[in-house]
Amino acid sequence: MALVVTKYGGSSVATPDHIKKIAQRLVERKHTGDDVVVIVSAMGNSTDELLDLADEITDHPNERELDMLLTTGEQVTIALLAMAIQDLDQKAISFTGLQVGIVTDSAHNKAKILAIDADCVKKALENGHIVIIAGFQGVTSSGEITTLGRGGSDTTAIAIAAAIAADVCDINTDVNGVYTADPNVVEDARKIDTISSEEMLEMAASGAGVLSMRSVEYARNHGVTIHCRNSFTDEPGTIVTGEETDMEQAIVSAVTHDTNDAKITIRGVEDRPGIAATLFGALADENVNVDMVIQNISEEGLTDISFTVPHEDLSRAQAAVVAVKDEIGARTWVLDEDVAKISIIGAGMRTHPGVTSQMFRALADEGINIDLISTSPIRLSCIIALEDAPKAVRVLHKAFELEQE
Amino acid sequence: MALVVTKYGGSSVATPDHIKKIAQRLVERKHTGDDVVVIVSAMGNSTDELLDLADEITDHPNERELDMLLTTGEQVTIALLAMAIQDLDQKAISFTGLQVGIVTDSAHNKAKILAIDADCVKKALENGHIVIIAGFQGVTSSGEITTLGRGGSDTTAIAIAAAIAADVCDINTDVNGVYTADPNVVEDARKIDTISSEEMLEMAASGAGVLSMRSVEYARNHGVTIHCRNSFTDEPGTIVTGEETDMEQAIVSAVTHDTNDAKITIRGVEDRPGIAATLFGALADENVNVDMVIQNISEEGLTDISFTVPHEDLSRAQAAVVAVKDEIGARTWVLDEDVAKISIIGAGMRTHPGVTSQMFRALADEGINIDLISTSPIRLSCIIALEDAPKAVRVLHKAFELEQE
Repeated sequence: MALVVTKYGGSSVATPDHIKKIAQRLVERKHTGDDVVVIVSAMGNSTDELLDLADEITDHPNERELDMLLTTGEQVTIALLAMAIQDLDQKAISFTGLQVGIVTDSAHNKAKILAIDADCVKKALENGHIVIIAGFQGVTSSGEITTLGRGGSDTTAIAIAAAIAADVCDINTDVNGVYTADPNVVEDARKIDTISSEEMLEMAASGAGVLSMRSVEYARNHGVTIHCRNSFTDEPGTIVTGEETDMEQAIVSAVTHDTNDAKITIRGVEDRPGIAATLFGALADENVNVDMVIQNISEEGLTDISFTVPHEDLSRAQAAVVAVKDEIGARTWVLDEDVAKISIIGAGMRTHPGVTSQMFRALADEGINIDLISTSPIRLSCIIALEDAPKAVRVLHKAFELEQE
Repeated sequence: MALVVTKYGGSSVATPDHIKKIAQRLVERKHTGDDVVVIVSAMGNSTDELLDLADEITDHPNERELDMLLTTGEQVTIALLAMAIQDLDQKAISFTGLQVGIVTDSAHNKAKILAIDADCVKKALENGHIVIIAGFQGVTSSGEITTLGRGGSDTTAIAIAAAIAADVCDINTDVNGVYTADPNVVEDARKIDTISSEEMLEMAASGAGVLSMRSVEYARNHGVTIHCRNSFTDEPGTIVTGEETDMEQAIVSAVTHDTNDAKITIRGVEDRPGIAATLFGALADENVNVDMVIQNISEEGLTDISFTVPHEDLSRAQAAVVAVKDEIGARTWVLDEDVAKISIIGAGMRTHPGVTSQMFRALADEGINIDLISTSPIRLSCIIALEDAPKAVRVLHKAFELEQE
């Protein structure tokens, strides 16, 4: 008997038939003796459909009203899921974010959870209900409806799990768990049984889309164990835990790749103090999310600065560069959209300094050129040409023997 | 400068373009100096679409969860309408039934309003906003979301108008107001400028669909003046007022017809005490809404009982009759679905006893047979054959000279 929080995303509840299937699984879980709290997202594309309606009304929807609009999506799902569970003769009750007391700050569209008053959840569980909670939404202390932004339903699930001290928080997805590499790229990629939250954070930050950084971070900060698993199978997935394990850790746990970055190189910049501050200040002012930064060794008092940004920030980044180009005395600048970031991640890298050269050697042996490099204590990332990405992932997966247990 | 509550139903806000048009009208109204509170329903068929989703999940949706589901419809409209008004550079803010403090009893799907805490409405008006409120919905004192049942948005509008002491409550519809008869049947039917709420109540009860009985009753009880008018014109419609007017009243104000009734006749019932009580007790147990009742004069200790019921109650009514048939000693029973109820309504009828014979004479002259008759102090209704209904309406409209001011 466990207390379980389990989260289903939009594709798992896309149609009434999907919802009935999820209801069946939840009732079976309840029958094993577990107490079950389920967090759901809006059905399938319904959030996009609501956004389309807003688009037809105005180019600049008010953020408060956008939250008022979008939160209806999850409210539809919780009502239908409650009906589906009740139809199987199991007690169930649904709550909106407001009703369950998910109190957030007032940053509409990207609110942060401040507190959860989960009293009604505990009472409903005691009364034998499966408790269904709308993900992605909360309420300010003055009663304004808010949303939590991207990955918000995961955050709701983990926050509720923390608030009621759940034994585990299932994040159900369309894959079987976290893999040593993208199985679409590496045929013998292996599902990871257990991974530390710090490794998972690095993976999420470097291209593994299965869990959002924000939810992994939230789980780590609140001591919540995540079980990342498939929505429609009973197979165990990947446990993400904040606890230190006693077993000797693998040096490298996974290879990730991210093709969402573009690279900007600014050439012939004067090599004097304040240049970088001006450039990156301008980028920050434009709300550009800069990832990797490299400054070349100076030649004759001139240097090159390269950095990567996500594609969605690219037009703002270019605007910022154009604006400061003369001020920083840049000769010219170049945009390369066809790049990929390849990373290896492993908690064991801390104590195995040879990993860096092993990675570079493996790539060099295949003739893959490394453009930029960045490191953390448990991650090594390289920017390479986009076309080399699949080969690089396969090469590194093999070089670090990730296909073996 | 007036304080105005104005309500738009689902067909007036069916699409983003409709919503933009309504926004334009509201902003123009605000620019005249009026303070504007607007109540809206769910867009077009969206409530039916939500019901279809529930239908796909279960045949017996839980009433609490049905309210959770259906209230999303109005929430979508208020958000979009707020965006549309803001897009015209006018301040606007939307509130759900819960946020505006529409407290109801806990009768899900047909809740009654107990109290309204309209503080946030007054504050928002003071701050120069057009205030947008979701119709049809409320919240119990324990925070459960409820809906008010059919015509619920009208009830919301009138309740809000009462709570903030509005000068008038506009009920916007797809017709220009209340007519002396259905303009589809009577070519020279005339729009009524002012009508008393008691006449309007009788009209609503006898087939005039433009306003619901419940909302007219609510308005009368709370001293709210209704202005029933067209959503998309500036023409004055019909004022429904609880105040006694000084002018001499027309004897007959309108002719209505209702083709939604069926007639059941039970033949050869023993004429002894308790028979009617048994029959109508059984109908009440089945929740059948009995309208007119006639018992014939007894012949040889046997009598006939006829009554009318709405078509939607017919199958339950038949079940009730079959169940008690033997107990009340009925020889046989007959169903007639092809009937219509024709009514004349007028506050002046109270003091003009000749109206009854005038009505019967007008129908008789056209060879229209009267089947059942029922009366109130300000209404006379006859059941006639369905096929005679259009002719009967035209004859009565002419007989009482309703085409003339």
